[in-house]
Amino acid sequence: MGERVFDVEPYAITTTRLDDAAMRVIESMTSIGNGHMGMRGNFEEGYGGDTHPGTYIAGVWFPDKTRVGWWKNGYPEYFGKVINAVGIIAVGITVDGERVDLHDGDHQNASIRLDLRNGLLTRSFDYRVGTSVVRLHFERFLSLVTPELCLQRIRVTAREGTPKVTLTPRLDGNVHNLDSNYGESFWEEVVRIPAGDPQLSMRTVPNPFGTPQYTVTASMRTAAVGLEHAGIIDRRLEVGERYTGTLAVGATAELVKTSAVVTTRDVDETAHRDTVTSLLEAAAASTFDEHLAAHTAVWEQRWARAEVRIEGDDEAQQGIQFNLFQLFSTYYGEDSRLNIGPKGFTGEKYGGATYWDTEAYLVPLYLAVSEPAVSRALLTYRHDQLPEAQHNARQQGLAGALFPMVTFNGVECHNEWEITFEEIHRNGAIAFAIRTYTEYTGDRTYLEGPGIEVLVEISRFWADRVHFAQARGQYMLHGVTGPNEYENNVNNNWYTNYLAAWVLRYTAQTLGELTVERASALGVASAEQQRWQTIAERMYLPTDAELGINVQHDTFLDKDLRSVETIPVTERPINQNWSWDRILRSCFIKQADVLQGMYLFEDDFTPDDLRRNFDFYEPMTVHESSLSASIHSIVASSIGRPDKAMELYRRTARLDLDNYNNDTEDGLHITSMSGAWLSIVQGFAGMRVRDGALSFRPFCPEDWDGFSFTIGFRGRVLGVRVTATTLTLTLRSGDPLDVEVAGRLHRVHGEVEIALEGVC
Amino acid sequence: MGERVFDVEPYAITTTRLDDAAMRVIESMTSIGNGHMGMRGNFEEGYGGDTHPGTYIAGVWFPDKTRVGWWKNGYPEYFGKVINAVGIIAVGITVDGERVDLHDGDHQNASIRLDLRNGLLTRSFDYRVGTSVVRLHFERFLSLVTPELCLQRIRVTAREGTPKVTLTPRLDGNVHNLDSNYGESFWEEVVRIPAGDPQLSMRTVPNPFGTPQYTVTASMRTAAVGLEHAGIIDRRLEVGERYTGTLAVGATAELVKTSAVVTTRDVDETAHRDTVTSLLEAAAASTFDEHLAAHTAVWEQRWARAEVRIEGDDEAQQGIQFNLFQLFSTYYGEDSRLNIGPKGFTGEKYGGATYWDTEAYLVPLYLAVSEPAVSRALLTYRHDQLPEAQHNARQQGLAGALFPMVTFNGVECHNEWEITFEEIHRNGAIAFAIRTYTEYTGDRTYLEGPGIEVLVEISRFWADRVHFAQARGQYMLHGVTGPNEYENNVNNNWYTNYLAAWVLRYTAQTLGELTVERASALGVASAEQQRWQTIAERMYLPTDAELGINVQHDTFLDKDLRSVETIPVTERPINQNWSWDRILRSCFIKQADVLQGMYLFEDDFTPDDLRRNFDFYEPMTVHESSLSASIHSIVASSIGRPDKAMELYRRTARLDLDNYNNDTEDGLHITSMSGAWLSIVQGFAGMRVRDGALSFRPFCPEDWDGFSFTIGFRGRVLGVRVTATTLTLTLRSGDPLDVEVAGRLHRVHGEVEIALEGVC
Repeated sequence: MGERVFDVEPYAITTTRLDDAAMRVIESMTSIGNGHMGMRGNFEEGYGGDTHPGTYIAGVWFPDKTRVGWWKNGYPEYFGKVINAVGIIAVGITVDGERVDLHDGDHQNASIRLDLRNGLLTRSFDYRVGTSVVRLHFERFLSLVTPELCLQRIRVTAREGTPKVTLTPRLDGNVHNLDSNYGESFWEEVVRIPAGDPQLSMRTVPNPFGTPQYTVTASMRTAAVGLEHAGIIDRRLEVGERYTGTLAVGATAELVKTSAVVTTRDVDETAHRDTVTSLLEAAAASTFDEHLAAHTAVWEQRWARAEVRIEGDDEAQQGIQFNLFQLFSTYYGEDSRLNIGPKGFTGEKYGGATYWDTEAYLVPLYLAVSEPAVSRALLTYRHDQLPEAQHNARQQGLAGALFPMVTFNGVECHNEWEITFEEIHRNGAIAFAIRTYTEYTGDRTYLEGPGIEVLVEISRFWADRVHFAQARGQYMLHGVTGPNEYENNVNNNWYTNYLAAWVLRYTAQTLGELTVERASALGVASAEQQRWQTIAERMYLPTDAELGINVQHDTFLDKDLRSVETIPVTERPINQNWSWDRILRSCFIKQADVLQGMYLFEDDFTPDDLRRNFDFYEPMTVHESSLSASIHSIVASSIGRPDKAMELYRRTARLDLDNYNNDTEDGLHITSMSGAWLSIVQGFAGMRVRDGALSFRPFCPEDWDGFSFTIGFRGRVLGVRVTATTLTLTLRSGDPLDVEVAGRLHRVHGEVEIALEGVC
Repeated sequence: MGERVFDVEPYAITTTRLDDAAMRVIESMTSIGNGHMGMRGNFEEGYGGDTHPGTYIAGVWFPDKTRVGWWKNGYPEYFGKVINAVGIIAVGITVDGERVDLHDGDHQNASIRLDLRNGLLTRSFDYRVGTSVVRLHFERFLSLVTPELCLQRIRVTAREGTPKVTLTPRLDGNVHNLDSNYGESFWEEVVRIPAGDPQLSMRTVPNPFGTPQYTVTASMRTAAVGLEHAGIIDRRLEVGERYTGTLAVGATAELVKTSAVVTTRDVDETAHRDTVTSLLEAAAASTFDEHLAAHTAVWEQRWARAEVRIEGDDEAQQGIQFNLFQLFSTYYGEDSRLNIGPKGFTGEKYGGATYWDTEAYLVPLYLAVSEPAVSRALLTYRHDQLPEAQHNARQQGLAGALFPMVTFNGVECHNEWEITFEEIHRNGAIAFAIRTYTEYTGDRTYLEGPGIEVLVEISRFWADRVHFAQARGQYMLHGVTGPNEYENNVNNNWYTNYLAAWVLRYTAQTLGELTVERASALGVASAEQQRWQTIAERMYLPTDAELGINVQHDTFLDKDLRSVETIPVTERPINQNWSWDRILRSCFIKQADVLQGMYLFEDDFTPDDLRRNFDFYEPMTVHESSLSASIHSIVASSIGRPDKAMELYRRTARLDLDNYNNDTEDGLHITSMSGAWLSIVQGFAGMRVRDGALSFRPFCPEDWDGFSFTIGFRGRVLGVRVTATTLTLTLRSGDPLDVEVAGRLHRVHGEVEIALEGVC
């Protein structure tokens, strides 16, 4: 566990530590977003110490020149980056002519607080300049009602003296990415209008890769009480206003700043001025508090479908609440051109918007806690990028489609060959999510419509990517990287081979279930289908009969096999202490690999199979991926290891709150934020969907008095509460439902209480 | 075969094609060097078309910021580069006010010629401006007598009209590297003196890596006939003079420019001015022709020790002559701080000065064709860098020493983990070269002095790098890259494992042969030696009993095994047509791997072993490394495949002359230039050293009337001539010598003629 900066409380995060050492972590943790845009918890007035400024607009990216050692055929041409966009929160503040800056200034009683129910970020402190002391209070949120809007309210109260106060609300386009590969700026100014509602349009600079340029236009309107308009700011890439006033002791001045942001993703550039003006005009009809109330109401609707409560453990409650809040701030399915980036709106690291994390870890959550349309938008995103996935396959000289490891537009843009070329299991996860959606919702229209097109092209890829090993008479996949990225370029990764064979079978099976017209429109000859079946049947799967396990890859058992406990504590995490080479050669596993496959295909294995594999692999697993602990926690729950399940739950639930991996300063681990939820719902509650029916095998962790959550399932909303002795199912809406609990069917209408003793 | 730009003639290269399409190839091919410095065949007057300017000074390098996708622990911090240094050949020329430029101007009868006996580069052409036509004739060479000197002579003859001619000899420091990773300049000006002998001092800019800065000072002196001094050039990073004259028809003007270059590698910066002045002063005592004659005499001494003649095949003769000329131009052992870079003084690509090529391919040649001191200097170079090699091992968390894949100063600077971390067989080649030197010369002082220190540290590395695979009860080397870089990160590369085991045995054996005092000074406990023996004995070596071959690595036989002939011609070379991923997964081999090991340890195997392995691996080998063809040619010779041997000889001998790999524009393949020599001497002549004695198993290729070469061996100089019927050995100097020919001993004093019929 890293350092804990924020207090433990169930529905908010608060800290009074506002210093350099913690600043980047605080900025990450207090990020807010509304799907359309988002930003780190940077200070309105700026900060003279170590800071990582970041405001990001969904879908606005730049193809940075990539960086590799030696270029080789097939390497991606660019690295798509989340880019730092116009700073809309900027409000410079001076007191008696001195710039307010928490880094250098004389301040007291500072605190920052993010409400995890509605995303209201508040901050306040007392600040002394000479004989004057003012109290500053900041509020801001990004509207869920009108996602183009950012609302801020700043109050300045004179505590001592009669301070002269100046506030300069601005739009600041002088931004750059800390991770720009060549130190280049990604923006150029298009229009700057300082008068009236200040407005700034900026466009991404031209790029040689043929990807779109984006124009972003921001405008702001300010309402001040107790301050006078005293001028404008009009500099390159920066516009704004100046307000000033002298406050009597006890007097409070207030500034409300409303910013509107549109982009050429949604609005033609010629209409930007009119659009932002209309948005500001409409916004002016409500007060800050009215806006906040409407915004909060939308959040409350979300929580009604998604709430998780943990009884008797505020740390755990804060963890799950923080994760769900940040996930929903990043993505709620409004725009199927978007996906869920690894840092969401909380940082720029890693680049790209889309990883296989979405399908593997997030689709199951969104399926349960939001309308099916939200998950379907994620699937549609991939279908829309099928031509680019075909391009990726062609780049490698292969048939079909290879969905990218990292992308914005569907074209691969990561820059390590051992990942882009080899970590191809992602293609399987993308296919598997189609099944997950279909099984959960019962809606076959996606599968039989766009879905089967994706499956066919993925199957074509696998069928070309395998080779027939004459000596063994089996099909193999050489040169792959499994989910465990602490090895790469291995042969016959069990997970990848198993998943590939499954995709081939599932595609062939689905084709057989289509209407003749639909099937023939897809143009898959029977010989091709037959070949897929043959490959699936004769796929080589490394196993060890003596150990009774699936083997991670061909030569894994030749390694120096040892438990994580043999690593000195001072050398962990190994990715910060060992050379890459040593990590690769070691047996230590970054995240679930064989177990990831057995988790996905649980029903293909006996509990004993699962137990043997868990007992073999988990002790070698360092869980240094944010995606590791949750899958292991679920498996531990299912094989009756509640303590292990709880240990791993804690790690996933408070990953950023407790800065476990010591990298929260770069941004939050957005895509792994479903881990805590999965550990609770699939793990502790043992929820599964089998043959269209919900089932549970629940237990209540010893540390908790109970836990409850809400899910949607095929038109119903169902409350689930687990205590040490009972499972309570409450049908909140929809038709009665048959639910299986530990092998017995229960019909749920109204509230059903099921005793767990002797059951689980 | 690529395009052949130069005419076939035995001891020179000449071309009349001076156009953009061929220019970079011509510049590479006409490079000259003298060990101290060298340059591409750039034009004195500049060239307005596509050109790759390059002047390089031995040992002057810069640690460019490296470029990798994602930084990981243990990655090298910088990439050491050969840097383009002050342009000393610059002489701008105008005729009637118009700049002479072969790219744009009206010219005829142009040709460029490099004499492969003495490195004199000449070029001439007729150039028309309006009604004036001049003939220009350029000569230049880099002195072997005084290696700081570059001498140039330019003659201008008026053919038509009375042209006004201006020549501006300059020192031009406005240079940069085409391959600078971030477009940065590596130089800053220190001193610029335009008056008297113009002088320019420039220093490499500061770097954050703690590697030395270098100051290079050049000065020039000009002697003109028929031209008047008309001014000076004095610009940032550039100094020079202007000469002008009007020529009557038939008149010739002449300019001789002598440049002296010193660096802080050899001379303290404060003494630079005096040193270059003294050098120019001393040089002025001789004419250009006298300098050339003295220089040529040194070359003739070299040829007397190294000459190779091929009777009846000018193409082959030109090939071997070109290769030896360029090798000697790059390195002749004067400075043990230097090594032999992959491009020598002919280009900047690849970076670094030192690769394992030196030990694997070049030491055997220099041992035979130059004094032992030359080879010993190459070994000493590595011993001097032992602390840095220890540093490299520590970077990977390993004991002992890991010599770098690419370096100037001993610290690894390449930027692909699969090479730096994994291509560790280089450590074995460096050890093996100590044995090669000792066996060839009979001089054990290197082995028992510095050599054993190197061997001990390399052994410590291997002993730490192996792991014990419990399941098999053997030691293994996982995560390595063999000489075949078309695979990487494999397990138990046969070549690497075999070589590592040999190093451990050889080190232990050598320790046993030392005096007690010397041995104990090395501090190797007997338990450590015992462990080395155990590892060597229990080293896992993948073999296949059914095929009767050594297996390239653990899962090689699971590949889709097929012959190179199944690759469509349009897809070759595969490294320019296939994605990197496809290459890695394929069975196709870049260069000798198993066969490289069997070549080094020939006596450990039966001829049938060698034949079976050759027949298995060679058909899968694409020979896309410049280092591949020669080793295969030697093995083909030794197993009685003369046609194959000749085919591969041609490929190695004329690699650059015929631009086989289509990359000669980047510079010459300096380190593979011993390949033709090895193919002749070890291949066709079957020369070996066994137990201190020379032996031959010669044959004469059918296309040739005969071939001869000269070698030194333990104080003798021996001429060897092979025809279809006879082997003639001529003792040129030294004591009589017993030589084995196909199993029979012959005492050589004077000339011995041995009939080959029935012998070979």
